[in-house]
Amino acid sequence: MPISRNVALSLGSSSWIRRMSDEGRRLKALLGADKVFDCSLGNPDLEPPRAFREALLSLAADPGRGSHGYMPNAGYDEVRRAVARRASRDQVLEIPPSNIVMSVGAAGALNVLLRTILDPGDEVVGIAPYFPEYPFYAGNYGGVFVPVSARPDFSPDPEAVAAALTPRTACIIINSPNNPTGRVYSRAELGEVAAALEAHARKTGRRPYLVADEPYREIVYGGAAAPSLMQLYPETVVVSSWSKSLSLPGERIGYLAVSPLCAEAAELVSGLAFSTRVLGFVNAPALMQRAVAMVVDEGADVEGYARRGFLLSEGLRAAGYDFPEPQGAFYAFVRAPGGDDVAFVMHLKEHGVIGVPGIGFGYPGYFRLCFCVSESTILGALSAMKDALRSWEGGD
Amino acid sequence: MPISRNVALSLGSSSWIRRMSDEGRRLKALLGADKVFDCSLGNPDLEPPRAFREALLSLAADPGRGSHGYMPNAGYDEVRRAVARRASRDQVLEIPPSNIVMSVGAAGALNVLLRTILDPGDEVVGIAPYFPEYPFYAGNYGGVFVPVSARPDFSPDPEAVAAALTPRTACIIINSPNNPTGRVYSRAELGEVAAALEAHARKTGRRPYLVADEPYREIVYGGAAAPSLMQLYPETVVVSSWSKSLSLPGERIGYLAVSPLCAEAAELVSGLAFSTRVLGFVNAPALMQRAVAMVVDEGADVEGYARRGFLLSEGLRAAGYDFPEPQGAFYAFVRAPGGDDVAFVMHLKEHGVIGVPGIGFGYPGYFRLCFCVSESTILGALSAMKDALRSWEGGD
Repeated sequence: MPISRNVALSLGSSSWIRRMSDEGRRLKALLGADKVFDCSLGNPDLEPPRAFREALLSLAADPGRGSHGYMPNAGYDEVRRAVARRASRDQVLEIPPSNIVMSVGAAGALNVLLRTILDPGDEVVGIAPYFPEYPFYAGNYGGVFVPVSARPDFSPDPEAVAAALTPRTACIIINSPNNPTGRVYSRAELGEVAAALEAHARKTGRRPYLVADEPYREIVYGGAAAPSLMQLYPETVVVSSWSKSLSLPGERIGYLAVSPLCAEAAELVSGLAFSTRVLGFVNAPALMQRAVAMVVDEGADVEGYARRGFLLSEGLRAAGYDFPEPQGAFYAFVRAPGGDDVAFVMHLKEHGVIGVPGIGFGYPGYFRLCFCVSESTILGALSAMKDALRSWEGGD
Repeated sequence: MPISRNVALSLGSSSWIRRMSDEGRRLKALLGADKVFDCSLGNPDLEPPRAFREALLSLAADPGRGSHGYMPNAGYDEVRRAVARRASRDQVLEIPPSNIVMSVGAAGALNVLLRTILDPGDEVVGIAPYFPEYPFYAGNYGGVFVPVSARPDFSPDPEAVAAALTPRTACIIINSPNNPTGRVYSRAELGEVAAALEAHARKTGRRPYLVADEPYREIVYGGAAAPSLMQLYPETVVVSSWSKSLSLPGERIGYLAVSPLCAEAAELVSGLAFSTRVLGFVNAPALMQRAVAMVVDEGADVEGYARRGFLLSEGLRAAGYDFPEPQGAFYAFVRAPGGDDVAFVMHLKEHGVIGVPGIGFGYPGYFRLCFCVSESTILGALSAMKDALRSWEGGD
């Protein structure tokens, strides 16, 4: 057997996101790029801001001696200082630079964290619909992903969370602004989750980590704001990246921030640096560390995404689709007419629109559309989706 | 418990390389940088070549649209084509671009490979002395590292390899030019290892992979040359990076190349792309992919390292140390006078010289010195080591 049983099995059920995105590429080659409206992949369509491009250029023009060499596994000291400053502002809590570990994106950060905290058989709780890589990340280290259904409005259900916690629960991952629903969890909602964790800790003596996976933190609309999880629960680890906010997903640059209120923060950070090393990340890419530190106060082009989100929402409603208004990130999670998400996504594909079925996020009956695409793609998708709904209901 | 049992145990026995390198930094701060001769870390002292710096500058000055975005997990098509051309030349065998997977350095590549091929309990054979991260890489995925002692001249011992192979053997890692010995394995030596693998495959029906970990391939001296492992055994996977050859270890850019003679190459490559994704690498850093592709025919500054190696060798011999002449990489593996490597390394530290004890490479009785340091560091180390040996033998 050329590959392990686990990988062989996983390849058979490959990512719906990647599958639909490959399908989009195939169709474009077949039908022409202007006939296909690919809303499958969260690959930001906006370019990195000018300040980032200038920072990169200045670093490339004048690299210091040894600037592409090794540094401590957790990252450059001065980069950790800059990121700590920014994370402190986001979390409204003073986070020391020693609590920051630079990472290969948020995906790398989550792997580093789970490698550090999971013993085989430990459980990782997540709110469904969820980012479909979570179960793989947990499984990499012998962990088990335990999905807990959100309420019908896609907010976390504290009672369901409480019921899912066991003595094997190592952490719960909270992703807000949420992919795929665009939901931003409120302070009250998150407070109830934190209370469930506290009650569990009192009962069992084990305090699960609260993992705030928040690469979309600043991409929020209409007055929504992502509250600080560090304010709500001491054992909180924030995981983030510049993939979405600065449109750098291919560069793999992100970080972990351990709450200063976490009882054993120093030991956890040592573990994170160790896992960064032995998983073969070794360190976050050197040049990108220094580049993002130079623009650490730079914000995402929220207006750009807000405009696209508004365009998509208006059009979808006018066409007769049902979905909760996205409050953040750049996704709409739309009810599949008739209820069969895979069938409807395949029907959309026939009309040139590429979405991802909810089953790919552990939540059938809906499908995801990304609006981090050009406005002309959105307009094309809307027009095709109007036809698609008509022919679907007409039974064509 | 804030971290897993496995990580807690591992932290207790942290890397000798990192420990000694931290010690070097501490001593420099204490005594002054000119009093400490740090030969602990394989962090290339030479700068990246001019062609690389120009490539990076041109990419930073004129990034294409979406150039920092996602691409397929295995890397950009055009980068895979360029790397395939170079790897084909190195291996003297036509490797198709579809057999290349870009990685986050060679350490990332090894993790991706082991995640892909190991079922829990599978074994990874390596030749001692070995790169001390191998056991961690295998352990990340439930694998077991099985060290096999080299012959006294540090060449692989085919009979010992044959004896170590079991039905659970998933692969053997061959690291030549070798870290820490500087040994370059000959074609005849490697042919015997390949024959042992063939015999094992005939007997058990399982064909272990031969993993060629060769980031030092082009850094060879005095007419030594690293033979093509793909020529010797069909199930070969080459793992490499630009960390050492172009002095980019902090940028985390490398690749895997699967032999076209490998029976199930396509399935293995699918698995490698999958593991790249789910381990959170997602893809090798975008900008560095394009930069190394532009300078893919650029070579290492072998002369620079040869000069340093010669300086160190001459001085060590003159001072009375015993070691095999390095044929490649930038390490000398020196017999510890008296036989206790940890004690002698601590004695050297008292004299301001930072080396790494052989026990850190699974091979006590020796210690490693890196010569990828400045010539003044080498001269300072030599002078201090002369005194150190005298005082050691005098029993001071």
